[in-house]
Amino acid sequence: MAQLTDRSLTEIRRDLHTYPEAGWKEFRTTALVAEELDERGFTLQLGPEAVNADARLGVPTDDDLAAAEDRARDLGAPDEYVDRLDGISGLVATKMYGDGSGPTVGVRVDMDALERQEATDDDHRPAREGFGSKHPGEMHACGHDGHTAIGVGIAREFDANGGFDGTLRLFFQPAEEGGRGGKPMSEADHFSDIDHMVALHLGLGEETGTVVAGYDNPLSNAKIDVTFLGEPAHAGGAPNEGRNAMQALAAAVQNLYAIPRHADGVTRINVGQVHSPNAQNVISEEARLRVEVRGETAELNEYMLGKARTVVEHAAAMHDCEFETSLYGKTTTFENDAEMVEAVKAAAEGVDSVSEIKDRKPFGGSEDASYLIREVQRNGGTASYVGIGASNPAGHHTAYFDIEEESLDIGVDVTCETIRSL
Amino acid sequence: MAQLTDRSLTEIRRDLHTYPEAGWKEFRTTALVAEELDERGFTLQLGPEAVNADARLGVPTDDDLAAAEDRARDLGAPDEYVDRLDGISGLVATKMYGDGSGPTVGVRVDMDALERQEATDDDHRPAREGFGSKHPGEMHACGHDGHTAIGVGIAREFDANGGFDGTLRLFFQPAEEGGRGGKPMSEADHFSDIDHMVALHLGLGEETGTVVAGYDNPLSNAKIDVTFLGEPAHAGGAPNEGRNAMQALAAAVQNLYAIPRHADGVTRINVGQVHSPNAQNVISEEARLRVEVRGETAELNEYMLGKARTVVEHAAAMHDCEFETSLYGKTTTFENDAEMVEAVKAAAEGVDSVSEIKDRKPFGGSEDASYLIREVQRNGGTASYVGIGASNPAGHHTAYFDIEEESLDIGVDVTCETIRSL
Amino acid sequence: MAQLTDRSLTEIRRDLHTYPEAGWKEFRTTALVAEELDERGFTLQLGPEAVNADARLGVPTDDDLAAAEDRARDLGAPDEYVDRLDGISGLVATKMYGDGSGPTVGVRVDMDALERQEATDDDHRPAREGFGSKHPGEMHACGHDGHTAIGVGIAREFDANGGFDGTLRLFFQPAEEGGRGGKPMSEADHFSDIDHMVALHLGLGEETGTVVAGYDNPLSNAKIDVTFLGEPAHAGGAPNEGRNAMQALAAAVQNLYAIPRHADGVTRINVGQVHSPNAQNVISEEARLRVEVRGETAELNEYMLGKARTVVEHAAAMHDCEFETSLYGKTTTFENDAEMVEAVKAAAEGVDSVSEIKDRKPFGGSEDASYLIREVQRNGGTASYVGIGASNPAGHHTAYFDIEEESLDIGVDVTCETIRSL
Amino acid sequence: MAQLTDRSLTEIRRDLHTYPEAGWKEFRTTALVAEELDERGFTLQLGPEAVNADARLGVPTDDDLAAAEDRARDLGAPDEYVDRLDGISGLVATKMYGDGSGPTVGVRVDMDALERQEATDDDHRPAREGFGSKHPGEMHACGHDGHTAIGVGIAREFDANGGFDGTLRLFFQPAEEGGRGGKPMSEADHFSDIDHMVALHLGLGEETGTVVAGYDNPLSNAKIDVTFLGEPAHAGGAPNEGRNAMQALAAAVQNLYAIPRHADGVTRINVGQVHSPNAQNVISEEARLRVEVRGETAELNEYMLGKARTVVEHAAAMHDCEFETSLYGKTTTFENDAEMVEAVKAAAEGVDSVSEIKDRKPFGGSEDASYLIREVQRNGGTASYVGIGASNPAGHHTAYFDIEEESLDIGVDVTCETIRSL
Repeated sequence: MAQLTDRSLTEIRRDLHTYPEAGWKEFRTTALVAEELDERGFTLQLGPEAVNADARLGVPTDDDLAAAEDRARDLGAPDEYVDRLDGISGLVATKMYGDGSGPTVGVRVDMDALERQEATDDDHRPAREGFGSKHPGEMHACGHDGHTAIGVGIAREFDANGGFDGTLRLFFQPAEEGGRGGKPMSEADHFSDIDHMVALHLGLGEETGTVVAGYDNPLSNAKIDVTFLGEPAHAGGAPNEGRNAMQALAAAVQNLYAIPRHADGVTRINVGQVHSPNAQNVISEEARLRVEVRGETAELNEYMLGKARTVVEHAAAMHDCEFETSLYGKTTTFENDAEMVEAVKAAAEGVDSVSEIKDRKPFGGSEDASYLIREVQRNGGTASYVGIGASNPAGHHTAYFDIEEESLDIGVDVTCETIRSL
Repeated sequence: MAQLTDRSLTEIRRDLHTYPEAGWKEFRTTALVAEELDERGFTLQLGPEAVNADARLGVPTDDDLAAAEDRARDLGAPDEYVDRLDGISGLVATKMYGDGSGPTVGVRVDMDALERQEATDDDHRPAREGFGSKHPGEMHACGHDGHTAIGVGIAREFDANGGFDGTLRLFFQPAEEGGRGGKPMSEADHFSDIDHMVALHLGLGEETGTVVAGYDNPLSNAKIDVTFLGEPAHAGGAPNEGRNAMQALAAAVQNLYAIPRHADGVTRINVGQVHSPNAQNVISEEARLRVEVRGETAELNEYMLGKARTVVEHAAAMHDCEFETSLYGKTTTFENDAEMVEAVKAAAEGVDSVSEIKDRKPFGGSEDASYLIREVQRNGGTASYVGIGASNPAGHHTAYFDIEEESLDIGVDVTCETIRSL
Repeated sequence: MAQLTDRSLTEIRRDLHTYPEAGWKEFRTTALVAEELDERGFTLQLGPEAVNADARLGVPTDDDLAAAEDRARDLGAPDEYVDRLDGISGLVATKMYGDGSGPTVGVRVDMDALERQEATDDDHRPAREGFGSKHPGEMHACGHDGHTAIGVGIAREFDANGGFDGTLRLFFQPAEEGGRGGKPMSEADHFSDIDHMVALHLGLGEETGTVVAGYDNPLSNAKIDVTFLGEPAHAGGAPNEGRNAMQALAAAVQNLYAIPRHADGVTRINVGQVHSPNAQNVISEEARLRVEVRGETAELNEYMLGKARTVVEHAAAMHDCEFETSLYGKTTTFENDAEMVEAVKAAAEGVDSVSEIKDRKPFGGSEDASYLIREVQRNGGTASYVGIGASNPAGHHTAYFDIEEESLDIGVDVTCETIRSL
Repeated sequence: MAQLTDRSLTEIRRDLHTYPEAGWKEFRTTALVAEELDERGFTLQLGPEAVNADARLGVPTDDDLAAAEDRARDLGAPDEYVDRLDGISGLVATKMYGDGSGPTVGVRVDMDALERQEATDDDHRPAREGFGSKHPGEMHACGHDGHTAIGVGIAREFDANGGFDGTLRLFFQPAEEGGRGGKPMSEADHFSDIDHMVALHLGLGEETGTVVAGYDNPLSNAKIDVTFLGEPAHAGGAPNEGRNAMQALAAAVQNLYAIPRHADGVTRINVGQVHSPNAQNVISEEARLRVEVRGETAELNEYMLGKARTVVEHAAAMHDCEFETSLYGKTTTFENDAEMVEAVKAAAEGVDSVSEIKDRKPFGGSEDASYLIREVQRNGGTASYVGIGASNPAGHHTAYFDIEEESLDIGVDVTCETIRSL
């Protein structure tokens, strides 16, 4: 029985850690959360109601999604809720507390795991204590298992202890990794009535007990998948008859890294992955790249994206190849509202287990909560992206990543206190 | 029961086609052939006696070899012979006929399949008639299943009909694809007493009924595997902290293709495969390439190999990476002996099913029978590399490759008639 | 007669504009200034006394220097002072005013022209009014003619009107373009007693009448000249016998632009010039590059320089070439002292012709006054790099650059008022 | 007085060596030869009558041509003939001998010098003996001075000693270096009546006394000049605003050398020259390349030319640059007619000073006599390209190249004897 209801937040986090689901495959996670929130009287928007299906980025193949759904059912995901997802993970859950006279407040947590192998030796606590990933090639290495547990914990806290007369809307976002789920969730109709929103993240280099009242200015980011399509030929007998996707790849990689720096601020470029799987004696007919660009502003990100596309187009044409590109993911940037940052600071001061409160910090990486935050702000609301310290034995996204679970209650308490104060 | 004894050459070929074994994994193939030849009174040299184990190139991992051996046993390979292989495929089988007063004659056939997927639709006869590959990702797409059957057929023919008073030595060579098995077989001690040798190949663009009395001058060939080793870093937060194996890869590929042409003759270079599997936001820590060079002569091949190594070394160092290279395979070149070519022509004229006889032709591709032929010639013997036409619906190494099985008997007859005439 | 004494600052500026001298060739400029300051009772340090000869960067060939010296003499440079320069341009001139009880104050101006052609059509005032450059390929396109005139004007002003009881030291620096003269001047012994220093620049996008009280934080900069040395060969008959400097060049340029961005701040890379002059049918034996790197800090500049050297080294080795590099020029960064910035602002307020005063601004480009400023600060002194607006019809370094000469008196007055106030 | 009439062939050769004229600048050479042949009764076709003006390749600028013409007049070129050249070098001279009943025979020699500096030290005989080049940057380093003298010598020989009853047509071709003059001379109307033709070359690695009866199969060749046009920008302040011709150049060079080898035969690629002359701190706005391709056949040459154009086009577009290309020169291939080769061999046997006769040899390099030879053959005539040995102290095209002048008479005698035998 997978049901969450009778389990502690730590138990929930460990269950999700054991059965990690990568982006757009969070069927079990979504369904279990939906089940508990349904019992708690939340109004649910599931799957295609939670995200704009057409705006999804970086979606796995239909076969992969179907396999993930089957796996979720096998592992105890309640069929009723999996059915309602209609093949799309993600949940928005809304509940009015008290007389509802207070503000409508959103809380956004993300649910997806990474596509990477978890460490299995005894140096790694999840392995040692038996809650290491049972899904080869998937791992909660960024704390989203904890984020999901905190989302459930916030509902439990208000149900148990009240103190808030307003409307609570919990966003359980899929596919944050790669920046794939934020944009389609921001383009579903959930934001016109949101007065304030908190998004949160565990860890980020801060010890348990520390709270960062606002992370600002993540880099805008775009990820594109590129395929060069040539024509195979025997490399010994007919080298001139091929159209060599490998040469297009090499020209592209060299010139992508050489995109000029920009006077207006920080830019980034990376080719994280290439793959061309031919035999040694065959001119490569297909080569694939996964490329990422970033910019300090959305404009700088677009500059990089435009330049990257030009390089790819002409690297292909130079070697008489065709090419295809698709947007794998995208994030934008944001700034916290000072009012919200102050509210979080004040709230954190009232939480005993918080030992240090830090002011606004630049975010460094990229985040697709950016689209939700911007949508709240565009509608006149205010938001902050809050950091909940959680001592880690190893860096985010590595095989030995883990979190101190004391941080889960801190996340619940700081968020609830903030909401109560608004 | 897998035993070959009661089956026709066509049935043997179809059995091998159904259970293809890629290079160094030919445990079932070798064991079944050994079983029949043992019964026929051949002296067997198996595995480490057939090839110089230390000289093997492009050997799969121990795990892969163990899995292949298990699979062979599961599919009816007789344990006695699999045991004697001691993890190394390959067989040399010798038998004296008559009073043994005649010459010692070698025949070399190869046994390995390719690592590629076979077509499964009804346009493809093996699929339609039920002998398509049952091993995903392995396929007899170069006719070596037929070569092995012909090797067995030659033993049967001399046993049944005699006509040869000398010593016959059959070489069942593993791992021809990539040029991995010829060199180690040439470096085991089988050649000091060989007076003449025939190596043969089916197809090569010739119709059933055609015989090519000698293919000459294959390109020398070397395949190297290259790994660039860098250091990962977050592409957004710390781009300068990585040591980027992807940039090393791109610099290598661009400059490999730009190795100068050589005044002395034909050279070739190809990068058939690259693989670097990181996430988009991580500086690549590892990148792998599979590279092939060729030369019209062994010296030109060494020129290309030397230049390629220089490029790889400095592409790595330019991006502060380490690198590893290993030789995956290697072939050399050869020329047929005129005496043998004449003998084959004369013999083919006496075979009814042969409709056309072609003289010597340049080979075009590469062949590691080259090492065996050179070893025979170095010891004072003579050799020819003979083509046995076999109408194909599709090119060698493609998913729809197949051979007309009438060619099997032609291969047996031309070879046996040649041997009888020597 | 070239003597400056009886000419106005505008006339001096126009004379220097007519006879521009590029870096390390400022023999006429230096000698004429020396002559006037000698008459005015300044103590002169000329040539090897003004700059540390061994620390010079980017020095032209001996032949070029000798020709420049001859030209200077032909154009009226007084032999006495040219002789004392001993082949090295540059002047430091010191004079005590009043009782010398006040501070020792340095003023740094630069004297060199650019290596570029000046516009000769009537749209360009210097051409129209007859003071366009008479030296093909040299042009005062950055206002240093005006800087030199201001340096003379400051001496004239204090001599005429006093108001300063201290020691004035005027630095007439050679070879600012490319960052070649600042370092060697900073390494001669002029700075241990300097209490305050002003360096100044005309123009920089500001209109006449505007004063910028301090330009801060120029990018650190280094320029390196690279030569790849290969071996020629006939491209048709012996392509393999060459060692191709052209391929080394191409690999270098591609990978230089691809040096990773740095998390700590702004970096820049540019290859401004390449030259390889062989015939089409000869493998290039020599290829030359002029490379520039920059960093927001000296450390970032060193990061770029180190990476650039690695790229160059292995681009050479990849193509079996040798290489040579030499440092052409180098600058560092600096921050103004608040005290000096305030002094300049206060002084500028007292100058009638100043219409607008701007506070500190980031510098954008690079400046080798940085070495002098740092040396002053290292010895406990304070400094500011001051901008004197001068309306330009066209950008710095372009063929149509010119300055409004009203700015010359403003430069003199602001500097003298600042010094009087210290 | 420059007149040739009273000078020996050696004196003529040395005069031409002293005043070398590079391609399309051979005004003095042409005019002096025309003057002597006019006196000898040849019908002259000069300049635009000798070559198809519109088909000229690699023509210098009008200014350069005008300067070369002025120089020719200053150095004694007779005005009458310079005037008739009308700015275009080149001469075709025809004379009927005897009753004209015999064949019409063409002889082609070339006249141009190389653009390179000659050695000036005493190790170099021309320098030591006072006939070194007086034109800086031009040198007869390929023996065309000797070829021109031989052309004159042939006229003198027939005038003096007869032995030929047919029509002699002498082709004094301009601009052989780079393959610029052959094509336009072949496209003027001189070939419809030619029965046989001899083209000749001194040296080519053969000692004086050796004759090569036919050089065959030169590589087809094409030379293209490429200019990339971008937009300058300050490399520190606005790196993103430039359009970087330097990056286009680097991408082009890398990918030009990587044009795939061709299964059908020999191909070549070289980038002999690059030039981009900007300052280090400016994004390059213009970059020029001189590129050469070759092929064993005209088709292979076109393959390389097509690929090169594709690379150039997309290297430009990849970096947002424009580009221009122009054909600098072009040659094709040819095969000698066996009949002519035999005639040359037989004739050479009758010349006392010939010590060794070699049969046909492959040519190795490229030659635009190819267009003339093909035109003769297309009209039904026969031709051979003959080598006249001439011991050289140093390789063709080097600063120390020289020829033994005994070879001049051998060239005359072998050619005249051949013609007499036809």
